[in-house]
Amino acid sequence: MYNTHTPEANEPFVIRENHKEANGVVTLTLNRPKQFNALSSDMLTAMQTELDNIAQDSNIRVVVIAAAGKAFCAGHNLKEMRAHSDEAFHSALFKQCSQMMLTINQMPQVVIAKVQGIATAAGCQLVAACDLAVAADEAKFATSGINVGLFCSTPAVAVSRNLPRKQAFEMLITGEFIDARTALQQGLINRVAPADQLAASLHSLIDSITAKSSVALKTGKDMFYQQLEMDLADAYDYAGKVMSCNMMADDVREGIDAFIEKRDAVWTGR
Amino acid sequence: MYNTHTPEANEPFVIRENHKEANGVVTLTLNRPKQFNALSSDMLTAMQTELDNIAQDSNIRVVVIAAAGKAFCAGHNLKEMRAHSDEAFHSALFKQCSQMMLTINQMPQVVIAKVQGIATAAGCQLVAACDLAVAADEAKFATSGINVGLFCSTPAVAVSRNLPRKQAFEMLITGEFIDARTALQQGLINRVAPADQLAASLHSLIDSITAKSSVALKTGKDMFYQQLEMDLADAYDYAGKVMSCNMMADDVREGIDAFIEKRDAVWTGR
Amino acid sequence: MYNTHTPEANEPFVIRENHKEANGVVTLTLNRPKQFNALSSDMLTAMQTELDNIAQDSNIRVVVIAAAGKAFCAGHNLKEMRAHSDEAFHSALFKQCSQMMLTINQMPQVVIAKVQGIATAAGCQLVAACDLAVAADEAKFATSGINVGLFCSTPAVAVSRNLPRKQAFEMLITGEFIDARTALQQGLINRVAPADQLAASLHSLIDSITAKSSVALKTGKDMFYQQLEMDLADAYDYAGKVMSCNMMADDVREGIDAFIEKRDAVWTGR
Repeated sequence: MYNTHTPEANEPFVIRENHKEANGVVTLTLNRPKQFNALSSDMLTAMQTELDNIAQDSNIRVVVIAAAGKAFCAGHNLKEMRAHSDEAFHSALFKQCSQMMLTINQMPQVVIAKVQGIATAAGCQLVAACDLAVAADEAKFATSGINVGLFCSTPAVAVSRNLPRKQAFEMLITGEFIDARTALQQGLINRVAPADQLAASLHSLIDSITAKSSVALKTGKDMFYQQLEMDLADAYDYAGKVMSCNMMADDVREGIDAFIEKRDAVWTGR
Repeated sequence: MYNTHTPEANEPFVIRENHKEANGVVTLTLNRPKQFNALSSDMLTAMQTELDNIAQDSNIRVVVIAAAGKAFCAGHNLKEMRAHSDEAFHSALFKQCSQMMLTINQMPQVVIAKVQGIATAAGCQLVAACDLAVAADEAKFATSGINVGLFCSTPAVAVSRNLPRKQAFEMLITGEFIDARTALQQGLINRVAPADQLAASLHSLIDSITAKSSVALKTGKDMFYQQLEMDLADAYDYAGKVMSCNMMADDVREGIDAFIEKRDAVWTGR
Repeated sequence: MYNTHTPEANEPFVIRENHKEANGVVTLTLNRPKQFNALSSDMLTAMQTELDNIAQDSNIRVVVIAAAGKAFCAGHNLKEMRAHSDEAFHSALFKQCSQMMLTINQMPQVVIAKVQGIATAAGCQLVAACDLAVAADEAKFATSGINVGLFCSTPAVAVSRNLPRKQAFEMLITGEFIDARTALQQGLINRVAPADQLAASLHSLIDSITAKSSVALKTGKDMFYQQLEMDLADAYDYAGKVMSCNMMADDVREGIDAFIEKRDAVWTGR
């Protein structure tokens, strides 16, 4: 409803496309460039629908979250938020947003953010919530809600699980930008490339992942996040169970045979 | 009682001063320079009193912990500790010290360490326990208790929540110094500046924070540390509640209006 | 049983030697260089036996885990794993491996990995599981199980407790190598040196540790890992109790006296 008067109004909020280069890879592009791809409730609904569909599709192994235009994502739509004065609306909006972030975390596919321009507030959170992130060297990151009096509380959850504590707190309490090199050094992103090589950098990362058995990818993502929240002994106990179960997969037998025979493995995904 | 024969004996242990440059900013200066500002029980009592008063004062938004003389803080007063042989004394001393560190963590104000010279043992812990820290480029940090047979157990709590695990353990088990650049890279501090620009670096950080709504500052600090100890789903749930409550503040309406109207916000702190 | 036809078959899996340079230091050398020191069940059994013996020996303060040949450790023995199709075997193998890693974590001695060449899969986990690690600058690290369809689940436990989350996940999901400089920057290791200076780098680290009171070393390692799994207030409470107990040691009185008298301390280990 906040976009009805713009030329973009008839465009989908999110564009889904399959990669030409690689099977099992889908790109979701945030498609409100003039609004810096703000996470309006409509945008969140569109993203949630796409992510839920993808989560059910065992043919898809990698999801890229990209953005149209100069900015990656400027976070929530401030005009939309300002138009509502009831706490229930905001509570529902933040719940919807957190649900999308949790879906990214919990879906079996590896989710990669592809970042250009600015990623601010919930847009910075979106980068942090993805499993991996690549960014153009001109990209900038901030949890800027505090500049309008609104501490980035939900972004804090994701950002503080990527960056060291003092660095995360500095971002959140000052609202200041960090550049891509700093974001890389502090753990917010994985790779930085010049803007004209960003796609190539992303594709080399995707190629590395799609070359893997889908059994291992799914097993790994789920166990990785689960064990992070356990103490050491429990984590080892859980990991051992997951790994001996993983050993029973056809793909592991094939993978080890291929390794010993010095040939490429042929995965069946079983 | 351990300072009665020094010329400093009549000086206060901690000097409190309001900033000229910024409202709502207080500096607490550790004032036993000849003793490298050791955290004697008298010093801890003085600090606790000041911090408790400040915690109750809603006009204060930022606290700087600084130190007189060449050193920031050399940790506990070894002579005082050596003079007591009963475990109860030491237990009480460490409890008093931990209470001060927890107060820094739990008070609503943002607490910034301003570090020159050495910060060792509980002095290094004090840096780690602050929300933010700036340091002169000649500053050095060590958890040096192990050099006298006393593992820095309470400092370990703060240091290991700032640095990566192996780097924290190396500091604690070797007692060796790391320099300011290393401390920055490993997460112990936020900013490094040449000694003659340290005040300017601190003030730019303070200016960034005092420009914010006090509602957002208080909301943010409390929620940041609380959510760090929750699992991901609980953290998001909690953050959403905090954030929708934060949205109800007058300051957020003003902040968003000011942002949309491209003017400075006028905060009321409500 | 998998080594019976090699010239190495009569060699011990693990060679234990005392340091000439320092008392209380033992090196355990993984001794299947032609198999890149794979962690076969025989190798794990040999390591467990040595570690359990050392854990009981209060004269030993530092354990170096080194490796013969060009590689540090290539992880599990894939041929051994492939030869078994029952989940129970694998479950027992991973349990055995995790037990060794937990023993390293829980034994009172400081355990240092000395890494040259590659450290992959459970070999990379072994580096992560040690308290400290030094590496030659040509060393490379990977959690490469995913290349054969087997996500490095147990290695993930150790690696994700050393590296930032996104960097750990990238290693685990891509299986790609990181070099020693990157490993240092990301927290997997403590020191990097040219290959011909690796021994010297290790010895300077060992010298720093063996100069300490054994009371402080034992106290510190145990408390360090315990408090990491507590919330902040509990951690301080626990740390205070440990530290006031530590204060009662003869070595602390001696250490403080020596510090005040500007002489070397003479430790009794009490």
